[in-house]
Amino acid sequence: MRTIIGVDLGGTNIVVGAVPEDGSALYGLATRRTPVTDGPEAVVDLIAAMVKACIADVHATCGDVEIAGVGVGAPGPLDTARGIVLLAPNLGWRDMPLRDRVSQVVSLPATLDNDANCAVFGEWWRGAARGARVVAGITIGTGVGGGIVIDGKLFHGASDIAGEIGHTTVDLNGRRCKCGNYGCIEAYASGPAIAARAVEGVEAGASSTLPSYVGNDLSQIDAGVVYQAAHDGDEFAREVVRDTARFLGATVANIVNMLNPDVVVICGGVTLAGDQLFAPLREEVRRRAFKPAHAACRIVPGTLSGTAGVYGAVATFKVQRWGSA
Amino acid sequence: MRTIIGVDLGGTNIVVGAVPEDGSALYGLATRRTPVTDGPEAVVDLIAAMVKACIADVHATCGDVEIAGVGVGAPGPLDTARGIVLLAPNLGWRDMPLRDRVSQVVSLPATLDNDANCAVFGEWWRGAARGARVVAGITIGTGVGGGIVIDGKLFHGASDIAGEIGHTTVDLNGRRCKCGNYGCIEAYASGPAIAARAVEGVEAGASSTLPSYVGNDLSQIDAGVVYQAAHDGDEFAREVVRDTARFLGATVANIVNMLNPDVVVICGGVTLAGDQLFAPLREEVRRRAFKPAHAACRIVPGTLSGTAGVYGAVATFKVQRWGSA
Repeated sequence: MRTIIGVDLGGTNIVVGAVPEDGSALYGLATRRTPVTDGPEAVVDLIAAMVKACIADVHATCGDVEIAGVGVGAPGPLDTARGIVLLAPNLGWRDMPLRDRVSQVVSLPATLDNDANCAVFGEWWRGAARGARVVAGITIGTGVGGGIVIDGKLFHGASDIAGEIGHTTVDLNGRRCKCGNYGCIEAYASGPAIAARAVEGVEAGASSTLPSYVGNDLSQIDAGVVYQAAHDGDEFAREVVRDTARFLGATVANIVNMLNPDVVVICGGVTLAGDQLFAPLREEVRRRAFKPAHAACRIVPGTLSGTAGVYGAVATFKVQRWGSA
Repeated sequence: MRTIIGVDLGGTNIVVGAVPEDGSALYGLATRRTPVTDGPEAVVDLIAAMVKACIADVHATCGDVEIAGVGVGAPGPLDTARGIVLLAPNLGWRDMPLRDRVSQVVSLPATLDNDANCAVFGEWWRGAARGARVVAGITIGTGVGGGIVIDGKLFHGASDIAGEIGHTTVDLNGRRCKCGNYGCIEAYASGPAIAARAVEGVEAGASSTLPSYVGNDLSQIDAGVVYQAAHDGDEFAREVVRDTARFLGATVANIVNMLNPDVVVICGGVTLAGDQLFAPLREEVRRRAFKPAHAACRIVPGTLSGTAGVYGAVATFKVQRWGSA
């Protein structure tokens, strides 16, 4: 069976793994820090080294299987048809022909798609949204992204931007977002935004055990700390998680009304919050969404923790080169 | 050339017209009040009478052309595959097999789709969004609806609900909506919501000429009166229109970020407000939307005033029966 290498390139890490075309396994998974400050060619060189190591691992494990190519997921906006990263502020890139550079250095065919798209596509192919006809996904990390899958293919829109859920508005006059606007969901539900809302509360005098998790250095509070404190019973941390659920719930309800998906899959570290987040989130969607659209939709956490992007990059390669995943 | 009859069934009016399959003309256009209180069979009988009169008109004008069938647009939610209106509060209907009833009484094949979907599809087929690959439409009247066209077909989602833009949230803690929630766009931008916001302002003491348009009977203020007063220079009415533009702009920006359409088309009486609405609306979208998605998108008023639903019902018939419009 042909095997494809998936590359998930982020502003923090590069994750690489090999997946046979039927999606039945994941070989040679490896993660390395992205050498952002060394420039794009250093990133390409590291990708090449990781892909070669991964191929060696596949051959050691499975014998002499055919390696069909490399699917790459990268931050965007992209031009997927030309394989170019148009702009990636976290990498400091502009108009970088990543697909062809990777293809050259590994001497294999390559494809390129958006990293959030790939994560959602991975969850459709092998994860929590497997087999659904219409899938909307939200990826929550340093930022908030998303992707849309319709009939087994990523929906790209007019210019490869579709699924940019992070800067949709839920509160017209709300919290200032890094993008310059007010009330984007990213300003409430990204990892840093969750941490910032918790820190603001503590600084304003909320009674909370949060400082004890970080030796009273509030700058060390991140979203994971908030989830842990909520899990441990801290009432203020629970309130922060419930508020996050309420904001995210309004966004998910907007997606449900607009796209009427079978599944909304929510990916990223936020899934660690578990039912503490998902129970009030589902309740907010039930309250806000059009009833028959809500009735048709499951809202689920992603199940491919840390590997959705790799699976999705592989599935994207299959679609771009072979017509379907 | 084959000709198709389009029926646009609303809670207030029924509009019927005949369109040749190439969309080049509109014959026998007629509008009648919907006999809601007389029950569903009275509505079906009136549709039958209007369709027959329309066919007679076509034959009188064009000679003995073939009438291929009837496309019907109706309020929903619907089951389009089975041709059933599941629930239409404005008509008092539940589980009404409208497609087959119309087909029986006129002895012609019939199809059914959502009325807002049809209006947007009409604008794609013959109006302001002609030929665009990805179209999102917003219909503004008594309520706020919408539709999505992808690659020449209506996108229906998992259960025929996609495009329900009216109850997407723009202000989580905002104005109460008739649906029971807070901050839906319909609570700001529907015709009655625009009128209500104007009346509230006047009652609260805003200096305005609006009362003079309605003989001081504020209950007679509707959205059209607000547009007229704004057009005539009333500063408070202009403020109401600008606020409407700001709310609608946030909704359009959400659509632009999520779907990355080539065209957003805005249909209904609100288009009468012209640049007074569209200039600040476009500005709000520019401010809020992801730049490359905004750059790819035209935001335009519909051009098929009063007939988009008929054209769209005809185009829907073509897709459902013949595979494409």
